[in-house]
Amino acid sequence: MGSYQNGVVGGDRSATSVDKGVDFAQYFCTYAFLYHQKEMLSDRVRMDAYFNSIFQNKHHFQGKTVLDVGTGSGILAIWSAQAGARKVYAVEATKMSEHARVLVKANNLEDVVQVIEGSMEEVTLPEKVDVIISEWMGYFLLRESMFDSVICARDRWLKPTGVMYPSHARMWVAPIRSGLVDQKVSDYRETMEDWYNFTNETKTNYGVDMSVLTKPFSEEQRKYYLQTALWNNLHPHQVIGTAAVVKEIDCLTVTVNDILEVRSNLSSSIILEDTRLCGFGGWFDVHFRGRTEDPAQQEIELTTAPSIDNGTHWGQQVFLMHPSIRVCGGDDLNVSFLMKRSKENHRLLEVELSCEIKQHTGKLLPPFNKTFYIE
Amino acid sequence: MGSYQNGVVGGDRSATSVDKGVDFAQYFCTYAFLYHQKEMLSDRVRMDAYFNSIFQNKHHFQGKTVLDVGTGSGILAIWSAQAGARKVYAVEATKMSEHARVLVKANNLEDVVQVIEGSMEEVTLPEKVDVIISEWMGYFLLRESMFDSVICARDRWLKPTGVMYPSHARMWVAPIRSGLVDQKVSDYRETMEDWYNFTNETKTNYGVDMSVLTKPFSEEQRKYYLQTALWNNLHPHQVIGTAAVVKEIDCLTVTVNDILEVRSNLSSSIILEDTRLCGFGGWFDVHFRGRTEDPAQQEIELTTAPSIDNGTHWGQQVFLMHPSIRVCGGDDLNVSFLMKRSKENHRLLEVELSCEIKQHTGKLLPPFNKTFYIE
Repeated sequence: MGSYQNGVVGGDRSATSVDKGVDFAQYFCTYAFLYHQKEMLSDRVRMDAYFNSIFQNKHHFQGKTVLDVGTGSGILAIWSAQAGARKVYAVEATKMSEHARVLVKANNLEDVVQVIEGSMEEVTLPEKVDVIISEWMGYFLLRESMFDSVICARDRWLKPTGVMYPSHARMWVAPIRSGLVDQKVSDYRETMEDWYNFTNETKTNYGVDMSVLTKPFSEEQRKYYLQTALWNNLHPHQVIGTAAVVKEIDCLTVTVNDILEVRSNLSSSIILEDTRLCGFGGWFDVHFRGRTEDPAQQEIELTTAPSIDNGTHWGQQVFLMHPSIRVCGGDDLNVSFLMKRSKENHRLLEVELSCEIKQHTGKLLPPFNKTFYIE
Repeated sequence: MGSYQNGVVGGDRSATSVDKGVDFAQYFCTYAFLYHQKEMLSDRVRMDAYFNSIFQNKHHFQGKTVLDVGTGSGILAIWSAQAGARKVYAVEATKMSEHARVLVKANNLEDVVQVIEGSMEEVTLPEKVDVIISEWMGYFLLRESMFDSVICARDRWLKPTGVMYPSHARMWVAPIRSGLVDQKVSDYRETMEDWYNFTNETKTNYGVDMSVLTKPFSEEQRKYYLQTALWNNLHPHQVIGTAAVVKEIDCLTVTVNDILEVRSNLSSSIILEDTRLCGFGGWFDVHFRGRTEDPAQQEIELTTAPSIDNGTHWGQQVFLMHPSIRVCGGDDLNVSFLMKRSKENHRLLEVELSCEIKQHTGKLLPPFNKTFYIE
């Protein structure tokens, strides 16, 4: 189940009240590996967007103070300094901070960039800053809930005149077709068939009847194969209907409360002639626009929408539905979307999707609902 | 890096002083999945050994009280009851205990088997027991350090006349040949080549010189590819020299202190004519012998030695060395073996291997040392 564990975390949902040791064991630790940093640093779309947002908007950085939240290897802090910042505070919770410090020095910027190891919720800076820059976005924007730490940083350390990099973020959803449905259904069925053989053999060979566990086992496997959002790199041709925004965030004003839940009713029209609705794809974009009183000279967009040439390491999140449903061009979907944080782990998410299809003939199909887990 | 995370744990090494939340997030949580339990229940060699040890030694169970440490699905507790136990306490730290309870009831044993959710270090039993049964063995026996909990259970709850199931355990090491060496060296070189391209491009495209991180990156990757013990299912033909015991444990008398370190000097003679020493394989066996005053009627062995037909889910742990060294039949190896717990996580291990080769001609080759991580 990869590098991110679902563990039991008690209490309320904000990052500050999560047991530090547990949060470290479950979340932060992967970021301490250089291999993981390299993966993100090798994402050209991501790198280009941040590089351009800084160097094409030097007026925001020259002679200014900057805070880089979750500096990792230190790349954004280094660029900020190279763009002319007077002082850059680069905060990093893991031991990666030691590599960042070394990298800053090797690039002759130790007089400007101060690397601070610690969590954003706990560190103290000597002063407030003109710019908060951070690459905080997780899968489908909010997985990992790192933005809580950016909001905390903003509320504590951003000057009243300060700007956020990025300044805006949006979540998008669109209906898709995908061969993954059939694959996952097949995997699930194979697992259940294997289970039935297993319970038969355990009864025959070992005298223990495990059939009473078939229901919880099937629920566990169903969740794993059919109800867990998948990472995928969608081809634009897989998007079969108009995409819609389910959340818009102004990074200057949003609160943690605003992002505890994402609730939206969206409409989507099928654009392909005759195809199968296999589920929905979710992605995000962020923009670097500065602020109204102090705008960017060059607005930059970083999008993770399905793309042939400009895919990112974020991919998209895919929410599969089965059986897939035949749809035609002109059919309309009314989708109700609700995303909340997992009770067990605030860095993981749950999505409730409800979809009603109004066929182009006018006929209304009964709605179907499904819950998904972003793990 | 699979389902087991290496996190920061402060303080001393015993399971009781590890932060509970962290231990749960890192270690226990995988055992809460039925899929994982099924994997272990599908291991025929494991199942046969425990089944036979119980049902061919009913005199140890009939009318007796039993404690199953880490009952998981409840299988050992159920067999103990079926073999005639008067009362069985089945302790399980995860929510798997709820499934165990259901399974006990479905097999009509709820009057005999009491499932208790909690850690062995914290639960209280109504009485001391005649038998402690547990399947506690991790890779190479001691990975996961679950045996600490069995020792704790024994010291608190076993009657002075009680028996341990299993009663004995041994760790084995033998020199091996393996194609994995070349593969891992190749993977490592490819990763480093990719890194050099990455640092060049980052300098060219983004003006940041990351070459100062080459050393830590190469250390991180070297550890991952070349210094981490691998799970493998060795073929007996891969064992090129005599196997030797590096640790013997009497489960009735061993203390946690005895197993904090495994230190051994072992000799091994090469048995193949002309081959390459690629490293060492490590495995274990356990025996069910009862105790001197109350022995088993039928002694059962569970071995995880390399086998064509009787492989287990434990496989063996493989410690690769490169470059591989040409050896001949009659060459003797003097190996010094030291295994200790990782400072960061007491459930993970570090191995220091030192090997001196005395060729059959009498010539002594210089010794080489290597450190490995069992993650």
